[in-house]
Amino acid sequence: MSVPDYDAQKDVTRANREFYRAFERLDLAAMRALWLDDERIQCIHPGGETIVGPERVHAAWDAIFQSTTWIRFELVDATAQIFGELAWVTVLERIHSKPDEQSAETLVAEAVATNLFIRRDDAWKMLLHHASPLARRILSEP
Amino acid sequence: MSVPDYDAQKDVTRANREFYRAFERLDLAAMRALWLDDERIQCIHPGGETIVGPERVHAAWDAIFQSTTWIRFELVDATAQIFGELAWVTVLERIHSKPDEQSAETLVAEAVATNLFIRRDDAWKMLLHHASPLARRILSEP
Repeated sequence: MSVPDYDAQKDVTRANREFYRAFERLDLAAMRALWLDDERIQCIHPGGETIVGPERVHAAWDAIFQSTTWIRFELVDATAQIFGELAWVTVLERIHSKPDEQSAETLVAEAVATNLFIRRDDAWKMLLHHASPLARRILSEP
Repeated sequence: MSVPDYDAQKDVTRANREFYRAFERLDLAAMRALWLDDERIQCIHPGGETIVGPERVHAAWDAIFQSTTWIRFELVDATAQIFGELAWVTVLERIHSKPDEQSAETLVAEAVATNLFIRRDDAWKMLLHHASPLARRILSEP
């Protein structure tokens, strides 16, 4: 196997963080810019089916952002693997959400995600996001 | 983007089928041979956390095979995407299982899987398997 490429590691990790920042900001334009504009892109939300292609993938983000008021991601154990122009990150998403911004109640859920990226013109673009619910924990914070 | 490589598509699709055959046969040696022998391999079973490295990945297969009597996979909408030496398949797994071989009852569940492969010496080896439960359907056949 090749020697790890630490700059690529850093860049992929940054692209992965940008993905979650766009999600937290509910910023559809930023989210769209993060993905490769290619009919092969795929997205699997927790409990959901495979969504294929930019039109359907971004329509799904739009629907999620419309129905979300406040969400923050704690990223646990993120690891990036680089194989040439492709890379993937697996990460445990600890998801904090509120039903409305004023709410004192924060719900915490966990999901495991695989995020696949491709290098294009020095940017790592998302090819696939696959998030799955963790069976064991749905917590509620005071 | 590059022109699709149809031989690679066929080979990747075959490697993907072999993965599910090894699972159906509960054949640990065949399962082990399908995966890259590399500390970076990762496996996420439905509802589970990320398992990393050959030792833990294959210990998990062993545990699953020990607790499984009979299982068959219907593979729906399998699509293979090739990017150089890497490829991935997304597929809807329709999982038929029986509590014991004589049972008249077959349980049917569905999961969505992302299977990532790397080409090594003309074989496509598994790098990552991520399967997630579908929220909408758990059916029971007569």
